[in-house]
Amino acid sequence: MPEFPAEFRERLLELLIWRRDVRRFRRDALPEGVLDRLLQTAVLAPSVGLSQPWRFVVVDDKARRAAIRANFERANAAALAAQEGADAQNYARLKLAGLDEAPVHLAVFADRGTSQGRGLGRRTMPETIEYSVVLAIHTLWLAARAEGVGLGWVSILDTSEIAGILEIPAQWSFIGYLCLGYPESSDDTPALEREGWERRRDWQRFVIPR
Amino acid sequence: MPEFPAEFRERLLELLIWRRDVRRFRRDALPEGVLDRLLQTAVLAPSVGLSQPWRFVVVDDKARRAAIRANFERANAAALAAQEGADAQNYARLKLAGLDEAPVHLAVFADRGTSQGRGLGRRTMPETIEYSVVLAIHTLWLAARAEGVGLGWVSILDTSEIAGILEIPAQWSFIGYLCLGYPESSDDTPALEREGWERRRDWQRFVIPR
Repeated sequence: MPEFPAEFRERLLELLIWRRDVRRFRRDALPEGVLDRLLQTAVLAPSVGLSQPWRFVVVDDKARRAAIRANFERANAAALAAQEGADAQNYARLKLAGLDEAPVHLAVFADRGTSQGRGLGRRTMPETIEYSVVLAIHTLWLAARAEGVGLGWVSILDTSEIAGILEIPAQWSFIGYLCLGYPESSDDTPALEREGWERRRDWQRFVIPR
Repeated sequence: MPEFPAEFRERLLELLIWRRDVRRFRRDALPEGVLDRLLQTAVLAPSVGLSQPWRFVVVDDKARRAAIRANFERANAAALAAQEGADAQNYARLKLAGLDEAPVHLAVFADRGTSQGRGLGRRTMPETIEYSVVLAIHTLWLAARAEGVGLGWVSILDTSEIAGILEIPAQWSFIGYLCLGYPESSDDTPALEREGWERRRDWQRFVIPR
């Protein structure tokens, strides 16, 4: 049974503090083998009933990338239109996607139709299939940051089009579109906080005794 | 910008490999301050639009714990009834909840009604609110394991009753019920694999080029 020394725990805390949702990437490709190693690490995540419902679609095709980008632009424009006044301007200033610069694009899905895990644990909460995939994304995110690779999660997309663009089975639910690459800069504060969009609240506000 | 040395990355991999969904706990309480520190770490997780929608309900009240346990027993019995033959027996043998032994019980919710984050990033994918909470749970999970504390995630519950039992706002969506405490044992293989319920597949099966 491995024990983790205090020094490791301090570093882990540092990793969590410096993990960011990266929006600005350098265009350099990741070295050979890095993405494979990160994906191999991601599947160490827990999954409901050991169902391993994660499906990582590595998007390299130019036409598909362009279609995803166009989808994002439409969804982003609609989101902007729904915001008013100064908020909308703030919103427009925020760099919301590294879609143009990031060398690696991953579309991540949850396969609700999988028979792996034989349904265990998801009878009353079928959404645990999606949650399992979120756990794998977070695992990938931390492993990436630990080797200096940044990840940005794009959720401003019209999800109804994604399966068609990527030609994947309709029963896979779309979880997120991830950009990976070397970040332009590093920070211990979220971009949204630096830009004045929102500030983080104290942890104690989120704890409720019962 | 902190860089993480190879030794840290190896330890991190070890942490991911030895993190388990713990079902058997020792009854010892966690030392003063440990839970607070873990919750403080959990809120370092990313959240959509910096919305921090996580709500950690610390369940200490005996009557509420008993009501949750009864809820689990009913949901588990229904799940068992839906399984047939040898599977059902396997299922019954699996120890599915540490509800009786774990010293700490956390019910975790996502507040879809929060105005924090001002809606950013969740217009087309409102479920990113729930996903943000899953990221916080995973952060808690890893931080706990790094200091020898185990976590078990219970999803076999009738979610419609949970808000009533814990007297929390109806618009909070229930994400999971977590048991925390010192584990009875440690393992690098999931219990479901050890018990022959399911086996993990190779990572390459989950990667699809496009």
